[in-house]
Amino acid sequence: MTVGQAGEFEVVRQITARLGPAGQVLIGPGDDAAVVAAPDGRVVATTDVLVEDRHFRRTWSSGYDIGRKAAAQNLADIAAMGAVPTALLVGLACPPDTALDWIGQLTEGLRDEAARTGAAVVGGDVVRGEQVTVAVTALGDLQGRPPVLRSGARVGDVVAVSGRLGWAAAGLAVLGRGFRSPAAVVAAHRRPEPPYAEGPRAAGAGATSMIDISDGLTQDLAHVAAASAVAIELRRAAFDIPQRLRDVGAALGVDPYNWVLGGGDDHALAATFTGDPPPGWLVIGDVMDGEGVTVDGEPYTAGHDHFG
Amino acid sequence: MTVGQAGEFEVVRQITARLGPAGQVLIGPGDDAAVVAAPDGRVVATTDVLVEDRHFRRTWSSGYDIGRKAAAQNLADIAAMGAVPTALLVGLACPPDTALDWIGQLTEGLRDEAARTGAAVVGGDVVRGEQVTVAVTALGDLQGRPPVLRSGARVGDVVAVSGRLGWAAAGLAVLGRGFRSPAAVVAAHRRPEPPYAEGPRAAGAGATSMIDISDGLTQDLAHVAAASAVAIELRRAAFDIPQRLRDVGAALGVDPYNWVLGGGDDHALAATFTGDPPPGWLVIGDVMDGEGVTVDGEPYTAGHDHFG
Repeated sequence: MTVGQAGEFEVVRQITARLGPAGQVLIGPGDDAAVVAAPDGRVVATTDVLVEDRHFRRTWSSGYDIGRKAAAQNLADIAAMGAVPTALLVGLACPPDTALDWIGQLTEGLRDEAARTGAAVVGGDVVRGEQVTVAVTALGDLQGRPPVLRSGARVGDVVAVSGRLGWAAAGLAVLGRGFRSPAAVVAAHRRPEPPYAEGPRAAGAGATSMIDISDGLTQDLAHVAAASAVAIELRRAAFDIPQRLRDVGAALGVDPYNWVLGGGDDHALAATFTGDPPPGWLVIGDVMDGEGVTVDGEPYTAGHDHFG
Repeated sequence: MTVGQAGEFEVVRQITARLGPAGQVLIGPGDDAAVVAAPDGRVVATTDVLVEDRHFRRTWSSGYDIGRKAAAQNLADIAAMGAVPTALLVGLACPPDTALDWIGQLTEGLRDEAARTGAAVVGGDVVRGEQVTVAVTALGDLQGRPPVLRSGARVGDVVAVSGRLGWAAAGLAVLGRGFRSPAAVVAAHRRPEPPYAEGPRAAGAGATSMIDISDGLTQDLAHVAAASAVAIELRRAAFDIPQRLRDVGAALGVDPYNWVLGGGDDHALAATFTGDPPPGWLVIGDVMDGEGVTVDGEPYTAGHDHFG
């Protein structure tokens, strides 16, 4: 059955039936708006839009995977402020011939990824559109801590990362060449695994700045450098390139450092610390006087323009 | 210049430059997420998606109008919970040949409509898509009051409305016949004027249920009737049909009651009260035992399925 056959209210009913209650949801889907606890007295909020054939392909990823990924990239933005996710809202445009089952899978992916962080899907909208477009808004709670901004890096801080780098880019490269394996890198493209808990942990440990790595490590750190009016110097030798990425790189003729330094979509977190970072964070460089990002003293350019 | 020529970061820069600070915005656009005050300790949140040629036409409405309308329909959902809007987040997908100037107009429309309620645009995302799609999320604050749900109507309550009914539908009918006047109804289609302040006022006056009229009065009241397990009986004579709507109806051969009872998009508020409603609300019917919505004792069907 397609969404056009089912009609708007049946689509919404089937979506809502797949969602469950969650502790911080005071009023869930079904009214004019949801009501979510904001115990801190402030709410952290972010929105990302994913468009078919631009941010995902239905031939490469299941509806469930796309739901997981759409949720993950928004939840990671909340974590990058040092906050704990509480809720997702989802706007979906799709053609009337979209299978109702696909919508159900997408919903379950969104629900399950949110649940990994303790958050829940609390509302949304489903409309007809020519192209499948998923707009996700995530909300979060700071638990009394100040938000960790991009602008707080100070000269002398160390730069550290938590989470995987380059895996999703390697997976995308594999899929782009028509392969479906190795499974580990393909799965990393389909379902990022952001280190959600490390955001609040870094905030508690005094991180001076933090960012979610979505466009690529060097490009995203360039935002931190610009916002903080500092330079960031990375050391290539600090990265421990996993053997799996080396193997995929050798098979495809790609230097795996390109994926690690320039690949996005793993949604690792990068942060700066005045002293040592907490366990689970890898020091990869230093904050210096100046501007821009260098790798072993050389400029590095890579990244992603959504209109390029 | 088009957004494709300008590139993602320039588009975001130009959007952000058009936004101003607002009291409850602690961290505005430009970081991984925004931080908004939620003094009540709860946050109200809603999302709506507007798709070109489905919810708006660029030949019928300016970018500024579309921004106003996209903001208004979300802000009205916040008001319908009895809350005061605090923030908007905006996800935008558009083709690369979209004029940068159009994006600027859209942004200013969103900003100005939000400002009418004291809210501000705090974040967003701009991506490439085949069709202009605007996904807006609105946040609001309950100021210590309980949210007013659809499910609270009780037998013996009166049903009342605040705001205009039928004006946007009349304007759409005029535009659909190829006319551009009368200006008042066309303007009502382009820029709804929801009675934002009446939502919190009704909540303070003890409204037992409330809903934003977006699909049509009878269809939206049917949601209240179903959620509250009651019947709603409306009296046709209770409505004061403005002469302007009578004139447009006569010119187009349409009974203006069809627009008032079945037309959406004005974003009036409907609510139920155990006693008299506050000033600014018009009593149009009663809550009874039973189910469904009747008008002068007869069933009335109209409305809108987004996949129909």
